[in-house]
Amino acid sequence: MTSSRLEAFSDGVLAIIITVMVLGLAVPRGDQWSDLVHTSGLGLLTYLLSFVYIGIYWNNHHHLFQLHPSVEGRVLWANLHLLFWLSLYPFTTAWLTESRVALVPTVVYGLNLLGAALAYFLLEAAIIRLPGGERLRQAIGRDLKGWLSPVLYLVGIGLAFVVPWLGLVPFVVVALMWLIPDRRVERFISSHPDSADD
Amino acid sequence: MTSSRLEAFSDGVLAIIITVMVLGLAVPRGDQWSDLVHTSGLGLLTYLLSFVYIGIYWNNHHHLFQLHPSVEGRVLWANLHLLFWLSLYPFTTAWLTESRVALVPTVVYGLNLLGAALAYFLLEAAIIRLPGGERLRQAIGRDLKGWLSPVLYLVGIGLAFVVPWLGLVPFVVVALMWLIPDRRVERFISSHPDSADD
Amino acid sequence: MTSSRLEAFSDGVLAIIITVMVLGLAVPRGDQWSDLVHTSGLGLLTYLLSFVYIGIYWNNHHHLFQLHPSVEGRVLWANLHLLFWLSLYPFTTAWLTESRVALVPTVVYGLNLLGAALAYFLLEAAIIRLPGGERLRQAIGRDLKGWLSPVLYLVGIGLAFVVPWLGLVPFVVVALMWLIPDRRVERFISSHPDSADD
Amino acid sequence: MTSSRLEAFSDGVLAIIITVMVLGLAVPRGDQWSDLVHTSGLGLLTYLLSFVYIGIYWNNHHHLFQLHPSVEGRVLWANLHLLFWLSLYPFTTAWLTESRVALVPTVVYGLNLLGAALAYFLLEAAIIRLPGGERLRQAIGRDLKGWLSPVLYLVGIGLAFVVPWLGLVPFVVVALMWLIPDRRVERFISSHPDSADD
Repeated sequence: MTSSRLEAFSDGVLAIIITVMVLGLAVPRGDQWSDLVHTSGLGLLTYLLSFVYIGIYWNNHHHLFQLHPSVEGRVLWANLHLLFWLSLYPFTTAWLTESRVALVPTVVYGLNLLGAALAYFLLEAAIIRLPGGERLRQAIGRDLKGWLSPVLYLVGIGLAFVVPWLGLVPFVVVALMWLIPDRRVERFISSHPDSADD
Repeated sequence: MTSSRLEAFSDGVLAIIITVMVLGLAVPRGDQWSDLVHTSGLGLLTYLLSFVYIGIYWNNHHHLFQLHPSVEGRVLWANLHLLFWLSLYPFTTAWLTESRVALVPTVVYGLNLLGAALAYFLLEAAIIRLPGGERLRQAIGRDLKGWLSPVLYLVGIGLAFVVPWLGLVPFVVVALMWLIPDRRVERFISSHPDSADD
Repeated sequence: MTSSRLEAFSDGVLAIIITVMVLGLAVPRGDQWSDLVHTSGLGLLTYLLSFVYIGIYWNNHHHLFQLHPSVEGRVLWANLHLLFWLSLYPFTTAWLTESRVALVPTVVYGLNLLGAALAYFLLEAAIIRLPGGERLRQAIGRDLKGWLSPVLYLVGIGLAFVVPWLGLVPFVVVALMWLIPDRRVERFISSHPDSADD
Repeated sequence: MTSSRLEAFSDGVLAIIITVMVLGLAVPRGDQWSDLVHTSGLGLLTYLLSFVYIGIYWNNHHHLFQLHPSVEGRVLWANLHLLFWLSLYPFTTAWLTESRVALVPTVVYGLNLLGAALAYFLLEAAIIRLPGGERLRQAIGRDLKGWLSPVLYLVGIGLAFVVPWLGLVPFVVVALMWLIPDRRVERFISSHPDSADD
C-alpha cells in the first residue's frame, strides 16, 4: 500500500473525529449567557483541548511517512491502532465534560491520552523496522517532547487523585508544549538529563 | 507539509461540518405541513445560511495556497485555528435555531462568524509571511469584501440588541455579497473610501 | 480550481451523507425479530432507497467533469447547490420513515428528489457554458433517463395524494432505472417520442 | 472511472463508519468506574470488534484494485453494495450492545458480517470479469481465509441459538485470523482440505 493512501485515510478519520466531537457539545436550553456558560462552557474548553490534541497528531503523523513511499501490514495495523485510541477522544471528552471533571473520568481521559501516545510510539517503531527505517530513528533523535508527554499524562492522572481539576493542568501543558515551538523546554530538559531521557 | 494535503484535510473537515449540521435539524413529530414549518422551517433557513458560509470559505480557502506548494508549522496552526471556528457553526447554528433567534444566541452566532473571519485574516497573514508570500498580498489587493464582512458582523451583533431578528439581516447580506459576483458593491465602496478601507 | 478538488470535496460530502443517514435508523428497544421489523424495518428500506440515490449521483457526477480539468465560480456554486439538496436526504428520509409514509412527508421526499434533479440539470448547464462545454452536451445526448426522472418524481408526488405508499413506487422505479443498465426502457421511450422528450 | 477515485470514496465511507460508531457509545451518567463498566464496557468491546472488521476490509479492499487502474459500472455498484453492508455495522453493533448480546441481535450482527463477506466475493467476481481480471483470480489463489470467514459466521449464528454470547466467539476468531498474520491456520486447513475448500 502506498503511504499516501494510508495518510489520506488517517486524515479522513482525524477530520471526522474533530467534527464529531462538536456533536458532544450540549446546546443550551435557555437563551441567556448564563445558560451558555453553564451548559456549554466546560464543553467548549474540553473540546478545544481535544481539538488541539488531534491537530498535534495530524501535524506529527505526516512526518512519519515522508521517507517511506510504501508500507506493509504491520505498519497498517499500528496506524489503525493509533486511530482507534484517537477515535475514543469524543467519548472520553464527553464523559469528562458531563461529569464536570470528576475523578474517574479525568483518569480515563488521561489513560486515553496515554494510550494514543503509546500507540504513536509503536507506530514509529513499526516504521523504523522497515527497510531504510533507520533514517526515521535519526530524524526523531532523542525526542524529548515525545517522552515527556506520557510522563506528564501520568503526572496528570496522579494529580487527579488529589483534586480532579488539577489533573488537567499537565494535559494542557502537553498541548501547549507541542503547540508553541518553544525550544526552552527542550533546553531545560537537556540540561537535566535525569528527568526525562531515553 | 505539502499544501495539497493541508487542503485535502481542510476539505474533509468542511465537508463533514456541512453534513453534520443537517443532524441538527429536528425531524417533525407530526406529519402535516404545519409540523414541518413549525419544527424545521427556521432550522432549514439557518442551515441554508451556514451552508452558504461554509461554501464561501471552501471557495476562498483554495485561492490561498495556489502560490504555495508547501507550508510550515505556523500556517498549519493558523489553518487549524480557522477550522476550529468553522467547526463551531453546527453548535451555534443549532442554538440560534432552538432559541428561535433570541438575543444572546444571535450575538453568539455573530461572534462565531466574526471569529472565523479574524482567523481567516490571520491565516492570510501567516501565508504572506512565507517566502514569496508577498504575491498573495498583491493578489488580495484592497480586499474590500474581506474587510466589509467583519464590519457587517459587528453591525449585525449591534442590531440584535434592538431586535434579535434584525441582527440576521447583515449576516445574510454578507452571504449574498460573496455569493453574487456583483461588482457594484465594490464600486460603491471604492467611491466612498472612508466607509471600509485598509 | 481544479475539477479534481471539486470532485474530492463532493465525494467527501456524499460519503458522509450516506453514513450519516445510518444514524437516523432507530435501534430497537426490544431484542426480538418483531422489534427489529417494527422499529427499523421501514427505516432500512428507506435507507436503502436513499443510499441507491446517492450512489447514482456519485456515479453520474464524475462523468460531468471528465472533459474539464478546471472550473470557475459559477460551476462551484452550481455544484454546492446540488450538494445542498442531497444533504437534505437524511432529514427527509428520516421524516418519511418516522411518519410511516404519511402524505406530506412523502411529498416532501419527492420534492427533495426533484430539487436534486433540477440542481443536477443546472450543474450540467453551468458546465456546458464553459469553454469547450459543448462536448458535454453532445455526450449527454437526448438524456432520456435524465428527463424521465423528474417526470416520475412528479407522478410519485401526485400518486401520494391518492395513497401515500403508492407515491414511493415511481421513486423506486427511478432508482431501478438508473441501477439496472437496461436499454429497453430507453428504446421504449425512443419509440414513443411524445412521452418524454426534450 | 479511475479506481483511485473509487478507492478514495470507499476510504471516506470506511473512515466515517469507524468514527460514527463511536457515537453509539453511551456516555455513563455516573462518574465511577462501575458506571463506565456497566454503561460502556460492553459497548467498547463491540466497538473494538467492529473497528477491527472495518480495518480488515480497508486493508483487503486496496489489494483488489492494484491491477486495475480503471473500472466500470458493474464494479462501481458491486463496491457500493459492499459499502452498504458495511454502513450497517454501526446499527447492528449498537443493537448488539444495547440488547446486551441477546439472541436475535447476535444473529443479526452475524448476518451483517455474512452479507458483507458475500458482497466482497461479488466485488471480487466483478473485478475478475474485467479484461485482465484473471490475474486477480490467480493472486487470490485458494483464498482459504476468505472462504473460512463466512463458514465461521454461520457457525457463530448457529451457536447463538445455544447461548447468544457463544455466537460471538467465531466472530472474534475471524477478526483475529485476519489480524494475526499466522500461517498455521492456513496450514491446518490445507492439511484438512475437506473442512473449508473451494
